[in-house]
Amino acid sequence: MSSMNIGLLGLGTVGGGVAAVLAKNGADINRRAECDIRVKAALVLDETKKRAENVPVTTNPADILADKDVQIVAELMGGVEPARSYVLEALRSKKSVVTANKDLLALHAEEIFRVAAENGQDIYFEGAVAGGIPIIAAMRASFTANDITSVTGIINGTTNYILTAMTEQGRDFAAVLHEAQELGYAESDPAADVEGLDAARKLAILATLAFHTPVLFPDVYVEGITGITSADIEYARELGRVIKLLAIARKTEEGVEVRVHPALLPERHPLATVRDVFNAVYVEGDALGESMFYGRGAGALPTASAVLSDVIQAARNRNAGVQGRQGLGHDRRLPIKPVRDYRSSFYIRLKVKDEPRVFASLALFFAEADISFASIIQKPRSGGNAEIALVTHPCRESQFEQALSSVRAYSKLEKIYNTIRVLND
Amino acid sequence: MSSMNIGLLGLGTVGGGVAAVLAKNGADINRRAECDIRVKAALVLDETKKRAENVPVTTNPADILADKDVQIVAELMGGVEPARSYVLEALRSKKSVVTANKDLLALHAEEIFRVAAENGQDIYFEGAVAGGIPIIAAMRASFTANDITSVTGIINGTTNYILTAMTEQGRDFAAVLHEAQELGYAESDPAADVEGLDAARKLAILATLAFHTPVLFPDVYVEGITGITSADIEYARELGRVIKLLAIARKTEEGVEVRVHPALLPERHPLATVRDVFNAVYVEGDALGESMFYGRGAGALPTASAVLSDVIQAARNRNAGVQGRQGLGHDRRLPIKPVRDYRSSFYIRLKVKDEPRVFASLALFFAEADISFASIIQKPRSGGNAEIALVTHPCRESQFEQALSSVRAYSKLEKIYNTIRVLND
Repeated sequence: MSSMNIGLLGLGTVGGGVAAVLAKNGADINRRAECDIRVKAALVLDETKKRAENVPVTTNPADILADKDVQIVAELMGGVEPARSYVLEALRSKKSVVTANKDLLALHAEEIFRVAAENGQDIYFEGAVAGGIPIIAAMRASFTANDITSVTGIINGTTNYILTAMTEQGRDFAAVLHEAQELGYAESDPAADVEGLDAARKLAILATLAFHTPVLFPDVYVEGITGITSADIEYARELGRVIKLLAIARKTEEGVEVRVHPALLPERHPLATVRDVFNAVYVEGDALGESMFYGRGAGALPTASAVLSDVIQAARNRNAGVQGRQGLGHDRRLPIKPVRDYRSSFYIRLKVKDEPRVFASLALFFAEADISFASIIQKPRSGGNAEIALVTHPCRESQFEQALSSVRAYSKLEKIYNTIRVLND
Repeated sequence: MSSMNIGLLGLGTVGGGVAAVLAKNGADINRRAECDIRVKAALVLDETKKRAENVPVTTNPADILADKDVQIVAELMGGVEPARSYVLEALRSKKSVVTANKDLLALHAEEIFRVAAENGQDIYFEGAVAGGIPIIAAMRASFTANDITSVTGIINGTTNYILTAMTEQGRDFAAVLHEAQELGYAESDPAADVEGLDAARKLAILATLAFHTPVLFPDVYVEGITGITSADIEYARELGRVIKLLAIARKTEEGVEVRVHPALLPERHPLATVRDVFNAVYVEGDALGESMFYGRGAGALPTASAVLSDVIQAARNRNAGVQGRQGLGHDRRLPIKPVRDYRSSFYIRLKVKDEPRVFASLALFFAEADISFASIIQKPRSGGNAEIALVTHPCRESQFEQALSSVRAYSKLEKIYNTIRVLND
């Protein structure tokens, strides 16, 4: 059996997972790749550190990028630079590249795929979005006969863990975040997760593949979960809904909608039952109908599973001499729709004076913006105030903003607790 | 752009769906296939029948199989013969073959893949199992770094529709089946669905791919849903479970378990929320962890989506001159475990005389077979009888059979209503 040398850029969580899975399942992997896959070297920051992996290490990227015996480079470092430079150099050195780097692809996918095509090399990236879920392969190969109209995902495990614990245990955001940090489910700096940035990067990649048009990280409207309270979750339950951080991409006649924000989701929606750190991606296409993929979105082994399936594919392609046939699949340039034109239903929870005609005035503010209500929950409160939760029928963001500014200026308003978008189906 | 001619063997529900999706999304499909895909001819039974599809038809299979201008044959007839002969002839005539035929593959996959390899041709079959769910591609390409340990599926839409209606509306099997037949969700002869045979054929294919070993339809233990009653569904609910027709394949140290039968499933299991005609396949692998695919398992358009993604892949391979590289992936021959050694928990519901020591005797029968109970529900009944529902801890089928024969011979037994297996996680 011929051999195929891979170089690992990075030997952290994912790189260590790749080495571990290769050590355990190497014989099967080699049989399926039809060649002998060996880790020739792994790029690390500290050569002297003791490691569990039985892999040669180096601190010099040229030991991998300039080594003509390395045919496949797996970039597992994360971050934009120097990952971008290394990936481009590997492609120019006629190596296949496998990457799990969402930060990089959400900004530079077009450049990387152009350089891959110019050099006739493969670039695979299953590990970049929702590790244990083969959604990238499905988009690139299985849904190709479809006009995909929407992609809706729970694609950040940390925030889903936090929202699940808040929902099932009635606890507060801060307490659950602290616990998640102690369990290693959340970083000590949790901003990228809880602010929705990680999900937005992944969504840019998914939307690019789904709609065959470039979508970049800065195109995505982002709102995180730091403002979600137990009270909102309790109201959602009364409305037959759960709150999830959703990543939503839609192809509309006015352009592409791409957004990450918390949303009230019907309890019967397939995404509503996705708990803890699990991820799921729900796809609608004109032929396939509704399809959903569910699995572990992160972690050493699920991501290694994705990375190694890419390595096996890249190795098979090189052995057959057919690398470089997988493009990014752009075949059009659709506009990104302005956020003010995005359509949603909205949940708004507020405290007003408990007086006659107050509700009529509220209703009027929304009617003036051409918005009607789907659900209303009103509860009497102490101190002459009433708490009201409203759910609107679908409207544009600009309409909701108009109604909201009237509400904000209303003399009988005590407080707007929260506004959260609502997904209806 | 070069052109690629396909021949359709069959222009029924699936063939018509393929023609319809090609007509609607042809421009995108051609761009993604990098060639112009045309239906050169479709094999039909009646040439004179009026059809919606704008496709040349023939009643002579040689018009497709012997036409050197047809590069890809899509076999969409179903049944073993003459489909098997046509597929083999197409491969020997150096054509790529796409098939949606589970009956054929569940019996003759090895022969077909051997002939494909001998002739250097592709054989793709995404449409054969759970149409809108790309589980075949995932097994063949995305999970390749894993040791897959189990596959659990809801892979028959008709029975899932029936069980969902029984569960949610409290109706009886016969009434719901009748309704399903009127809606076109069940055939006028529903045996293949309600007896579990359709699911068993699909499971044989999934197990073959998951465990890289041949598994045939007759290897699968099959039990249908005709014996499930509303009372069982109600007891399941009290136990926090729902009843689903599950297709289960497990790799154990004693060999491969493959079985289709109704089972009580915890309400929180991802498969428990799969409703109506939807299908889902739950896969466990040592690296990826738990992964689930959900979607429409049948119907003209979802199956056409699967068939056409295969056609696009086959066309790309032919254009690159690399067809025939996808094997069935057998790399071992694992034994099929004898059914008596399959392990399950069991639910048993029975009516006994409501007398002292009756329950102690029942418990003894199970204890003698080394089986203990996980749950017990006892309800007083009129006429001096009691109804009891028991759930055992996991045991072998042979142990359960031993206990059951003691129960059957017990003088205080009035009736065994049902026994159903239980899935614990």
